[in-house]
This record gives sequence, C-alpha cells and structure tokens, in this order.
Amino acid sequence: MAPKVLHFVTDFFVYETAKSVVVKSWSVGIINRFVQLLIILYFICWVFLHEKGHQQRDTGIEYAVMTKVKGLGYFNNRVMDVADYVVPSQGASSFSIITNMVITANQTQGSCPETDEKFNCTTDHDCNKNNSSNIGNGILTGTCLIDNSTNSTGMCEIEGWCPAEDDNVSGTPMKEVENFTIFIKNSIRFPLFDVTRGNFPSSLNQSYIKTCTYDPVRHPFCPIFKVGHILKQLNQSLDYITKRGGEIGININWKCNLDYDVENCKPKYFFTRLDAAFENSKASKGYNFRFAKYYQSEDGTEYRTLHKAYAIRFEIIVSGNAGKFNTVPFLINLVAAFTSVGLATVFCDIILLNFHKGADEYKAKKFEEVSEIVQESNRPYQGSQASIKALGKSSNDSGTFSIGRQELEGV
Amino acid sequence: MAPKVLHFVTDFFVYETAKSVVVKSWSVGIINRFVQLLIILYFICWVFLHEKGHQQRDTGIEYAVMTKVKGLGYFNNRVMDVADYVVPSQGASSFSIITNMVITANQTQGSCPETDEKFNCTTDHDCNKNNSSNIGNGILTGTCLIDNSTNSTGMCEIEGWCPAEDDNVSGTPMKEVENFTIFIKNSIRFPLFDVTRGNFPSSLNQSYIKTCTYDPVRHPFCPIFKVGHILKQLNQSLDYITKRGGEIGININWKCNLDYDVENCKPKYFFTRLDAAFENSKASKGYNFRFAKYYQSEDGTEYRTLHKAYAIRFEIIVSGNAGKFNTVPFLINLVAAFTSVGLATVFCDIILLNFHKGADEYKAKKFEEVSEIVQESNRPYQGSQASIKALGKSSNDSGTFSIGRQELEGV
Amino acid sequence: MAPKVLHFVTDFFVYETAKSVVVKSWSVGIINRFVQLLIILYFICWVFLHEKGHQQRDTGIEYAVMTKVKGLGYFNNRVMDVADYVVPSQGASSFSIITNMVITANQTQGSCPETDEKFNCTTDHDCNKNNSSNIGNGILTGTCLIDNSTNSTGMCEIEGWCPAEDDNVSGTPMKEVENFTIFIKNSIRFPLFDVTRGNFPSSLNQSYIKTCTYDPVRHPFCPIFKVGHILKQLNQSLDYITKRGGEIGININWKCNLDYDVENCKPKYFFTRLDAAFENSKASKGYNFRFAKYYQSEDGTEYRTLHKAYAIRFEIIVSGNAGKFNTVPFLINLVAAFTSVGLATVFCDIILLNFHKGADEYKAKKFEEVSEIVQESNRPYQGSQASIKALGKSSNDSGTFSIGRQELEGV
Repeated sequence: MAPKVLHFVTDFFVYETAKSVVVKSWSVGIINRFVQLLIILYFICWVFLHEKGHQQRDTGIEYAVMTKVKGLGYFNNRVMDVADYVVPSQGASSFSIITNMVITANQTQGSCPETDEKFNCTTDHDCNKNNSSNIGNGILTGTCLIDNSTNSTGMCEIEGWCPAEDDNVSGTPMKEVENFTIFIKNSIRFPLFDVTRGNFPSSLNQSYIKTCTYDPVRHPFCPIFKVGHILKQLNQSLDYITKRGGEIGININWKCNLDYDVENCKPKYFFTRLDAAFENSKASKGYNFRFAKYYQSEDGTEYRTLHKAYAIRFEIIVSGNAGKFNTVPFLINLVAAFTSVGLATVFCDIILLNFHKGADEYKAKKFEEVSEIVQESNRPYQGSQASIKALGKSSNDSGTFSIGRQELEGV
Repeated sequence: MAPKVLHFVTDFFVYETAKSVVVKSWSVGIINRFVQLLIILYFICWVFLHEKGHQQRDTGIEYAVMTKVKGLGYFNNRVMDVADYVVPSQGASSFSIITNMVITANQTQGSCPETDEKFNCTTDHDCNKNNSSNIGNGILTGTCLIDNSTNSTGMCEIEGWCPAEDDNVSGTPMKEVENFTIFIKNSIRFPLFDVTRGNFPSSLNQSYIKTCTYDPVRHPFCPIFKVGHILKQLNQSLDYITKRGGEIGININWKCNLDYDVENCKPKYFFTRLDAAFENSKASKGYNFRFAKYYQSEDGTEYRTLHKAYAIRFEIIVSGNAGKFNTVPFLINLVAAFTSVGLATVFCDIILLNFHKGADEYKAKKFEEVSEIVQESNRPYQGSQASIKALGKSSNDSGTFSIGRQELEGV
Repeated sequence: MAPKVLHFVTDFFVYETAKSVVVKSWSVGIINRFVQLLIILYFICWVFLHEKGHQQRDTGIEYAVMTKVKGLGYFNNRVMDVADYVVPSQGASSFSIITNMVITANQTQGSCPETDEKFNCTTDHDCNKNNSSNIGNGILTGTCLIDNSTNSTGMCEIEGWCPAEDDNVSGTPMKEVENFTIFIKNSIRFPLFDVTRGNFPSSLNQSYIKTCTYDPVRHPFCPIFKVGHILKQLNQSLDYITKRGGEIGININWKCNLDYDVENCKPKYFFTRLDAAFENSKASKGYNFRFAKYYQSEDGTEYRTLHKAYAIRFEIIVSGNAGKFNTVPFLINLVAAFTSVGLATVFCDIILLNFHKGADEYKAKKFEEVSEIVQESNRPYQGSQASIKALGKSSNDSGTFSIGRQELEGV
C-alpha cells in the first residue's frame, strides 16, 4: 500500500501552471500594456480613491437630535413665547412652530348651526344627506335651523362642541418667526467603529454658541439656525408660509472618512421643502392641525378652546455613513483588480487572432488541436497515434509541431 | 546603459497569452456550450433582469409623513372630534385614536383608599409590604382604612392624586372609529438620484382626493384610508380593538426603477399588526396610556382629570429603494459574467480528463511535465536535457512529445 | 452553403482549454498547496463562517416600540405619577421623565420687570440694545423699572407673560426616579424573510413579566428596565441627572441567523449616553424644555403655569439585520473562492520563475515565444517557418523544443 500512498502524495504536490505563448509584437504589446494601464487607473482612481474600495462602510448610523427654539412674537395682540408656539414642547427632531391660529373659544357640548356653506339648507331634508360624512364640525341632527326674521337660507343643526369653528376668520400671522432661532444638538454614533460625534466641536466656547448664527461659509459649524435664513434659502414666501403653514426639512449629512483624524468627521447641513413633491398638486397645501385646551368651570362643566393651528413643521433628517480601512474589502478589491488586469489579454487576443497581420501564425502557436477520433478508435496500440490529427493540415496549426519540424529541418 | 534600457522596454512590451488546447469533440463541445449557455442565461435573467445588476441602488430613502384624521364619534354621550381623540394632534407619522377611556375626574392631592383588590388589608401591617413597589395609584401611607360599620376587609391608604383610579369602570367604546378616515401625505426623496416623489400624483384633482377611499384595486393611489377597511384586512375585531386598544402599521413601500419614467415610481400600501409578535403572549394585550387634564380652581388649588385611554395606535412605516443604470455596477457584473462563462471549462475539464473515452490522450495533450530533477543537476551542459523526465513513461503523457514522435514516425 | 454551415457548427462546438505545465517539484508543490489551503481556510472561516457569505441579508428592519413607565415620586411635596412626569404620554419610543421643574404659576399677559441679571439697567437707554435678541422672557418695552425707595439698579420692563420666569429658583429633584421601571414592548419584522419577532418570548408568563427586572446575565429577556440600573451602567450621577436632566439611549440590537430556529432570534440590549459627544463641551449640558398648562378664570381671562422641566430623555434605538441561506450569494462566494484558489498559481509562478533553482528551465517550459518578424515577412511559402524565432538561442527556451530534441537524441 505504501507505494500507492506515496504516489498519491507525489501527485498531490505536483504544481500545475498555465503554459503561455509569448508574443514579441510591439503593436500588441503596447495595446496590452495600455489596456492594463487603463484598468489599473480605473481601479486606483475610481474604486480606491473615489469609491473607497479599501474601506469597510458603516451605514447603520445611530443618532439623537435635541432642538430648542428661541424667539418672541405677537399674535392676536398677545406675546407668544416658546411654551405657546412650539408643539410638541420636548425639543424632539420633529416639531412645529405655530404661526397662525383660528381660535374658537368657550366651546361646550350642545347643539348649534354649522358654519360652512356646504351645510346651507332650506328644509330638514337637506340636512340628512351628509349623515355618513366625516366633513363638518359635529354630527347632523337632521334639523335645518332657519332664522325666520331674516327669511334667508338656514344652516343645518349639529350636535357636538358648540359654537362650531368658522375657519374663515383668521388673525394676523406671527411674522416675527423670521427672527426665531433653532438650536440643534445632534449626536451620532457609527456602531461598527464605535465612533461618536457631535454636530459642534467641544472647542466651541459657550459664548460663541450663544451668539452665532449658521452660515454655510462663515459659520458652518454653528448649530443655531435662523428661520428667516432657511426660508430664504428655499425661496419660501414668509407671507404665505406664516399664513398657511408649511413643512421644512433640515438635513444633517455625515460622510466620514475615519482613516483621517476623527476631528475631520463633520456634518453638512442643507434644507429641503418636504412638500416639494406636491408642489403642483392643488390639494393639501400648507400645514395645519387642530388641538384644544380644556377648561372646567366651577360647576364642573367642561369647556374648551379649539385651535386650528397653521404651523411651520420642521423635521431634522439625519443621514450618513463612515468608512475605515479594512483588510477584507481591500483584499477583495485588490484581487478584483489583479483579475481584471488579466482581462486585457481577452481584448488583445481578439486583436491578435483576428485583426493582426500574421494572425494565422499566432493561432497556430496559441491553439493546439486534438480531435474526436479518439473516441472511435479501439485499436489498442494505434490509439494514441491515431488520436492526433494531422495538425499540419489544420488551419489551427499547432505551434509546437511547427517548432519541432523547423528544428528538425534545421538539423 | 542604452542596450539595457532597450532590453527592458522590449521585455515590457512583450505580450503573453495562455496557450490553449483545442478539442474537436462533439460531446465535450456541446456540454461546454450548454454550461456556458446556462451561465449566460443565469446572468441575463437573474442578475440583470431580476436583480437589476446593471443598476446603482439608493437604499437611504428620506421621507416625511403628514397625517390627518377625520370623523366624529360618541363617547360617554358626548360628541368626540379630532381635537378630542387624536394624540398627538400634530399629524405625525405615529398617532393614536382614542376609542375608550377610564375617566377619573376631579383628582386632588391628598389621601384616600386604594381601589385594586391587591391592596385589601385587615391590619396596618398588610400595607407596608408593597412599599417599594411601582404598582398602585399612590404611595402607601402604611394605614389600613377599614369601614367599621360594615366590618368588611379594608383598603390600604395611599397618598397622591385622590380619588384613586378604578379601572374596572369603563364606558362604551367609540365604535364610530370604523368610519373614520386617515389622510396620508407622504413625500420621499432618493438623495443619490435627487428624485422626489409624493404618494399621490399632482394630476389628482382636489375633489377626487376629498371623496375617494383607498382600495387596492380600484383606488390604489387614493391617499385616504378608512379605519374599518384596515381592520377588516387585518381580521381585527372592531369590538375588541375599540375596547382594549391595538397597534397597527401602515407600510408604504417604494420600489422604483428610475430607468423608466419617474412617473412609474409609485407607492404600495400594506397593513400589519405591530403586536403580531406578541399574539400568543398572555401579557400586555392591547394598547393604552394615561394622561391628565389639569385645572385650577379660583382659590388656586390644582386638580386634574385622569384619563386611562385605550387607543388604536397607527404607525406609518415608509421603506423602499430605487435603482438606476450606472456604468460601475454594470461593468462589474459584466466582468463577473465573462469570468463565470470561463468556469464552464473547469466543469468540462473534469469530464474530459476523467470520464471521457481517450481521457489519457487529452491529459497528454493538456499537461506538459517538468520534474524536480532540475534542482539536483549541476552538470553544466547536460542540465537541460536531464531536467526533462522520460515523459513517455509517465501517466500524464506529454501531448507535445506524442505529436513530435508521431510526426517523426510519419516522416 | 451547407458545408459552410457545417463548418461553422463544427467550429462552434469545439472545446478550448488551457494547456498546462505540470511541475514535479516538492518545494513549489508544497508552497502551492499551502497557499491554496490558506485561501480555502480564509473562505471557510472568514467568508462563510464569520461573514456568513452564503446568506442573503435583510438590513431593512421594520420595527415598532411601545413603552410604559411605572413609579411614584415626590416633587414639591406632591406625589407625581405617570400622567404628571412622562411626556409625551402615549408610550412612544422617545419619551422624557421629568425629574425637576422651575414652576412659574399664574402668568398673565401684561408688563413686568425681567428677572435675569443681563437685563439690569440704570436708564431706559440700557433697555433698547437687546431689542432684536431672542433671549429673555418677553419683548422689551424700552423702559427701565427702578424701585426708587431702594435706589438700587433697576430691571428692564418686558411685555409678555408676567411675572417672568426666574430659573434660579428650583425645587428638590425627584430622586425616586431611580426606582422607576420602563417596560419596553418591541416588535420587529424582516420584510425580506417575512419574519416577525418580539423582544420577549410568548412563553414568558404574565406574572414573571410583572415582577422581573432586566439583568444582562440573570434576566436577559425581561423587558422591564430599572432606571437606576441604567444610570449605574452608564456611570451617571443620580444627583446631577435628576437636577439638570440628561439624554439616554436604550439600544435594542437584533442580529439573527435564520438558518437556525427562529426562536434563537433574540434581542440584545445596551445603553448609551446620547450626549456623550458633547461631554467635553461647556455649552448645553443636561436636558430641559418648557411647557405650560393653560387655565381660564371665570371672567374669561387666560392664565398659565409655565414649567421649565429638567428631564431624563430616553430614546429606544432599534437596529439589526438577519441572514438566511440563499443560493445566489452562496454561488457568488463559491465562485470567488474557486477563482481565488487559482491565485496561488500567480504567487508560485513568481517563486518558480525567479527564485527557484532551475528557473530558466521552467521559463523555457512555460513560455513559448513568437516574435514580431511575422509582420514584416511577406514571402508566401517561408512565412510560417520564418515567423518562429530560433528559440534555442533565446533565454526563454521553449520547453517543447527541448523535449523534441531530447527524444530525438534518445532514438
């Protein structure tokens, strides 16, 4: 058995490598090197330098946003402060600044006429058709209330919070919002690399942070944004947005190359209109929502003040990714690069074997032929000889044969 | 030095290509082409057509959601409108519709007996054990309040908002929620391609949007969803969910092929039960939360009405990605395809060299042998000759030798 | 035409495979197998076992979080319960527990002096300079209010909610927060595999869930977290955080291998300080926000109680991905593995052709040369012969030639 094992081991440690044909042709050689150069340049410039192919990427950014709005404005002859106009008040990443309100004070549960023209009526019959509808300030009772003294058309009666809201009445929007500032504290973490960053450097002193205003050129790391500046950047009309409301996105983009000092990992800010997709749509312009403040009188009756609030809604959208050198993607791309360099051969072979002078010679040199005949020959001693075609007559002349013959002739 | 440089340049521009053996065998040729065809089909059908291997993908979708609920219902003989039952009121992507409440009115700070059976007691001693516990409506004072007139078991006394909530009492749920509608305005952006889309086309006119209701077949782009329709799709019982609350997800999925017209980039909606994972769990069914409305009496005493609200919580979950033709992934996959086609050779070689008639002949043709002897031979003039084994005796017959010999014999 | 087609078909089904040189050298053979072994080990251990290269990954995790805080504490001699200190109350993934407050009661619209030292004044002139500023409790009227009886410096008068907040006054923080518990219900879904999981198994019975507390070792699946435990893990001082507020992240990480039983897909929890990035920054320590409770007196005057709330803000951050066996990535990596094994040849060729004894012999065997001369020779019958260099004289001796010669000599 020993010889068999030995034989197996010997066979196992045999080294096999491709036999190559070396072509000493300037044209093909130059084309080959040029194509290889292009491929190498592509890998260096695009894959490694631009696409950072040697880096592992962390796209699972984790973040937290804290916001704080400051400013004072007038609405309905009252001074509004943060507790009045910011909803919700906790300083989340999404918040609204109320700039206009339709206020319906002292509503109690009861019956009263509707306010919208859609509910005009002349008989009780008119007030049944919309029974199943969700539009309106209350549930229709089916009665048409007509003030006989004026003989005009009446209004359907509703049950619910009365008096009903009349949203045609509106105050003067709080235009001071233009000067309001939004302070944004954004901290991010790339879990893969365990890198934590904040949107302003620790080195910024407190007095600078308290007085600066974000400016893309002069103060790119100041975390305080003036609402007026954002509106101007988005070409939003202050008059319109304060009256009808709107939705604005503040994007914070982190794209970090952690091969450099982590201090270079800094955010970039840009602003978007969140309703940009609906710009041409006629429906659903602006932004508003309804909320109520509830009160209770001494006798226990609950009453409320309904607010239809037109607001500018801000959403802080944080995105980003980080890259850092890692042997795994580096090796993968390096192997891909080496493999691709070999592809130059495919290209040059096409030229060499088809469009080059002496293509037939190259073919003869590159290809060695063996034909099917072997399968049909069962003659024991002649098999191997018969299996080889007379290669000299084939168009794919065997280069080895030619060499052998030539040498023989030379002898 | 010049000749050296010349030599180096000449060497550099030498072109090297693999020497091939061409086998004229129908069986292997057909297998080879068939395997190649399979690989090509795989790349065309799966990698390019199905997996869109020629496209660059943007998975970092940015989005904003605005919601508006409409509808009127009855609870406790009072008409409830949006300001009453939607929390939070700002129309965010996550909101709750309150359908049932346990209301504990006119609570003031003070002392009173607990309401839950867990706090039954006969002596003060019974009321100390739970001191550190978080269950209960207030902080135990350590006193057991027993109404001596009835001689029954007593209740531990607590300090806190009194009277304590008794959550066994509950009203009739607001079943009108079935007819409520949710309007969803969702705008998305693919930052890589700078494409912005909304969940309903600009072409939809306002009157359609005001009257339509979403239907997967007839109105797939209507952005108004009826709560009853969603519950029905999820096989949720209206009775149960309005009484105990529940959590529902509205998924908006964007999968866009930006090689086609951007107008084809449209959302798909589907609904999920967010608590599906806990379906079999006995703990924590439904959904509820507590909030309070605070009042102040004329003498300055603060009192509140505590609400334990059972609600249907909706979460709008936006996901998606977009693809667009890009030369980089296209080239990578094309190169991968070409490389893979070459793998057919590996498969065919195995057949050819092991299972084919005349395998030995092919081996002889494909493999050319050179042995270790070269390392041991130091004889100057005989080295090259001695280095070559007598190949005729090896099992890996050298094909070139055979050819040479055959030709010689033929001469 | 038939012969042409036949010829084409014959040519098409020709099988082409690389001609190999087999080197029977122990050293190179062993190096070759060793390098191949390293590459195979790398693919098995790293690519397949560690990186799960045979799996398709779903990184688009969809999730929903529901939270519920429990506990009772004292603030300002009043018992605070969930409805008092949790904001927002709906049990969302982001919520705050108020631990300290500056309460300014009974504010009404009017005029009053400022409270901050920044607004000290001696003449009206001092009260104009800050006109455009956003700092302060109201809008400056331009008057300096000086109490002449004391002859001290005065304060600027403001218009707004009066009296102005004086945030130097503060109560005793609610330190009982240490014993509060947070119940987290987190359900996730991997849309690609349609797998839904919850953060606690259905098998946990209700009594366990009601009494357990999360502990990384003993109760890793208990969904109830004690605030004190979290603070201790983060080395946060209870005194500081209850007084000034803070931001804490509760990360829930799902990393699932769906090749195993889905029951093994379980969450891991860890805690982070969300403001860790700003640790060294002097600005913006802690976390606070302002909100107001609005009241109305019998005569209809609105008044409010302003709260500056210092709170611990919790953010539940859910992340994760799942993998499952899929033929596509498996095949891709398998092909990559096979291709890479071939790279051992590149390495061994370098050794063989440059650093090995008898390197010249191997070169002669591996490379077969054909020179440019073919391009210049136009002599019809001598072309093929002339095109072949006298290889015996070249340094890249043709191995085939040597064999032929040797055999001839042996005849």
